[in-house]
Amino acid sequence: MNKVVNSLKEAIGLSGLKDGMTISFHHHLRNGDYVVNMVLDAIAEMGIKDIKVASSAFFPVHGHLVQHIRSGVITGLDTNYMAGPLARAVSAGILDKPVTFRSHGGRPRAIHEGSLKIDVAFIGAPSSDAMGNINGMKGPSACGSLGYAIPDAMCARKVIAVTDYLVPYPNSPVSIDQTLVDWVVKVDSIGDPAGIVSGTTRVTRDPIGHIIAGYAAEVIQASGLLKEGISFQTGAGGASLAAAFHLREKMLKGKIKGSFGMGGITGFFVDMLEEGLIEKLIDVQCFDLDAVKSIKNNPDHMEVSASFYANPGVKGCAVDNLDVVVLGATEIDTRFNVNVLTDSNGIIMGGSGGHSDTAAGAKLSIVVANLLRSRLPIVVDEVTTRVTPGNTVDVLVTERGVAVNPRRKELEDRLKDAGLPVMSIEELKAAAEKIAGKPGKVSFTDEVVGMVEYRDGTIIDRVYKPVGSDI
Amino acid sequence: MNKVVNSLKEAIGLSGLKDGMTISFHHHLRNGDYVVNMVLDAIAEMGIKDIKVASSAFFPVHGHLVQHIRSGVITGLDTNYMAGPLARAVSAGILDKPVTFRSHGGRPRAIHEGSLKIDVAFIGAPSSDAMGNINGMKGPSACGSLGYAIPDAMCARKVIAVTDYLVPYPNSPVSIDQTLVDWVVKVDSIGDPAGIVSGTTRVTRDPIGHIIAGYAAEVIQASGLLKEGISFQTGAGGASLAAAFHLREKMLKGKIKGSFGMGGITGFFVDMLEEGLIEKLIDVQCFDLDAVKSIKNNPDHMEVSASFYANPGVKGCAVDNLDVVVLGATEIDTRFNVNVLTDSNGIIMGGSGGHSDTAAGAKLSIVVANLLRSRLPIVVDEVTTRVTPGNTVDVLVTERGVAVNPRRKELEDRLKDAGLPVMSIEELKAAAEKIAGKPGKVSFTDEVVGMVEYRDGTIIDRVYKPVGSDI
Repeated sequence: MNKVVNSLKEAIGLSGLKDGMTISFHHHLRNGDYVVNMVLDAIAEMGIKDIKVASSAFFPVHGHLVQHIRSGVITGLDTNYMAGPLARAVSAGILDKPVTFRSHGGRPRAIHEGSLKIDVAFIGAPSSDAMGNINGMKGPSACGSLGYAIPDAMCARKVIAVTDYLVPYPNSPVSIDQTLVDWVVKVDSIGDPAGIVSGTTRVTRDPIGHIIAGYAAEVIQASGLLKEGISFQTGAGGASLAAAFHLREKMLKGKIKGSFGMGGITGFFVDMLEEGLIEKLIDVQCFDLDAVKSIKNNPDHMEVSASFYANPGVKGCAVDNLDVVVLGATEIDTRFNVNVLTDSNGIIMGGSGGHSDTAAGAKLSIVVANLLRSRLPIVVDEVTTRVTPGNTVDVLVTERGVAVNPRRKELEDRLKDAGLPVMSIEELKAAAEKIAGKPGKVSFTDEVVGMVEYRDGTIIDRVYKPVGSDI
Repeated sequence: MNKVVNSLKEAIGLSGLKDGMTISFHHHLRNGDYVVNMVLDAIAEMGIKDIKVASSAFFPVHGHLVQHIRSGVITGLDTNYMAGPLARAVSAGILDKPVTFRSHGGRPRAIHEGSLKIDVAFIGAPSSDAMGNINGMKGPSACGSLGYAIPDAMCARKVIAVTDYLVPYPNSPVSIDQTLVDWVVKVDSIGDPAGIVSGTTRVTRDPIGHIIAGYAAEVIQASGLLKEGISFQTGAGGASLAAAFHLREKMLKGKIKGSFGMGGITGFFVDMLEEGLIEKLIDVQCFDLDAVKSIKNNPDHMEVSASFYANPGVKGCAVDNLDVVVLGATEIDTRFNVNVLTDSNGIIMGGSGGHSDTAAGAKLSIVVANLLRSRLPIVVDEVTTRVTPGNTVDVLVTERGVAVNPRRKELEDRLKDAGLPVMSIEELKAAAEKIAGKPGKVSFTDEVVGMVEYRDGTIIDRVYKPVGSDI
């Protein structure tokens, strides 16, 4: 038995893909991904139209899809994160239907419950055998964990593996197995390894970033969670990684060993695993090549599915076992609602990813941010786009001071006792406005370009087209 | 978050188990298993009745269940293999409803398609964390692969992990993950490691067995399949393991490297992996402690689910990639139908396991058997119980000669050309009857005690109660 077909078009033909259907992708190849563009080019050449593309994220490289939207090949998008020309085109209203924005946990919930039905899933496969046993550990385009692709492979009606590294049967380890895969297509290359690695996975050198990160680590210590068995996640951004750096210093000093680090995994977390400061890594996505190497070789570096990571619809996901998460923000409002989706000009430049999932699950969720972002106050009266609800955010840490959600009075007392510069979030807002002035409001049209679905499936906000953003 | 409850009864209570429901178990702890008996004792004490017990196999130790059948706690059984006092009681008609006998591939097909609905699955877990991340590699009752338990965990309405080795979160590797598990119960012991190991996993010392095994290896060679990349499975019985021994000799001599060995895995296969004679092991069940040790430490020793192994309802299972399987038989008839379920006295003493799955999938399926079994001819006019259909069996190898299924004329020619003692199956039958006489027929009542379901879901035979088998 052998599932290898001669071309992408042959596989698409066999899959029965027709106008009006939904296809899906995972984003582990990040800005180095060739698969999404390649598949949509093939679909366009085959004359198929009115396709909804559900990808766990879109990167600048996927600006290529704009042409396929213009020609009617793509009429819908569904994603957890979107940046670059495609995001700008969506903000400008290129699609008739609003994009559905989900979280990394909400997406597998929707897929498993059937509210996001996938007709054909395309799995960018760094290695596969002829039966479709896939992993991301081997091959020229190795990306490590394939966590976000697993729900797609489990639930899509048809599954096509696209690989540039066909290996003898049986391939191992098996991240996605042959029981789920219909066809295997060999292509020249599925991605550019240089682009697979995000540019934001190194600890910041910015001294302000280190002040913020240092406060964040002190907040964790003061909260009482910095003890044997602590678990934590930090984003890949410079400031949140810097928080991990300062947390590590405190763990070393206190001879404290953590149970697990989670999330998108970077070399910094790998180093902590290897030096014995944490027992395990729970990895749904590798952010750099150190992480890719580690997940291949270190059995304590665990590959997990998006459902394991953050799906609120299963019998317990890992974010619920998280002590601390350190997150970023493009805006936070005085009720602690966080925006990571739209920029200060109202244009789409991101999305939840695991932001709202980890904030909901962790015992302590900390947002770190400079008081000013692009010369504008980070704290606003109301966020442009509500991605993470304020009732799941505990602390805002800036270089000027630390604000605690009024829901966490006992935490505020602890931070004060520890000598941290605790202020109200309104005071932080006032301090920022004193420097930068009160920002003007972005003007929006009444055209809805995105619906923000919270992890549990409820719509918690809409994204509007800003005035003057036509393309 | 923590799923650990105080007792088995508490977990059963929380699961909502009620009269008339179906519970399930896996059989990796084999004759050392404590979990099945422990759970049924608890259910009996709780006053729950009319339970169907679906276990991938029952061993002599599960004779303990007979009392729970007598008292009405258990009213139905569903299994792939059954031996010992429970099997004898079933043959004697202890149950009002016939037992459903499936194959190792048919069972996950039935579970995933919903024809075998499981209300509560009990997973004997050699190690688990408090969230239900389970593997069989660690702990005092380590049994290696948990392949047969995976479909149960995926599809049961409620899943209870029963463990004697609770480890810190997160446990790894993860064979069954927390997204599937509802509760975790810690007990003193889930099994006796001495009983986990089957007594039949060593190569036979019987010279007749080696003659048969030698012929089997020659059949494989003559078939043309003994070449680079060969894949094979042999049962754990002495004669089929001896076939692996003779195959190994030929592989060494011909400098041939195999792609994978599959099945229930023994130390003999582990040795072949470690000496580089095969690239991978595909393991759905460890038959001895060497296999348990290997699956824990060797990344080329792959744990796979029952669906991956043999489920005909998925998008391709591993038996379809198998070159050669060497199988046993209690009877084979002149149309090559095989019985591995009932003994010569008509009493239940086994079941398909993977017999009919591998016979259907492999390019070459060989049955090895002594010409006489318990002084009775192995070849009969019609098998007492048809488990593996004759159209999936290619060759019968005995010490007296080799019979090829008439459907495989080209294979018969090859074996003749190679100088093997090819005879018709009728000639083998006659040769046996010349020694032992024509056996008398077992007399059966018209009471049906078992239904034999083929891997695709069709009923291919019924098992009747033998006359005089009352208990």
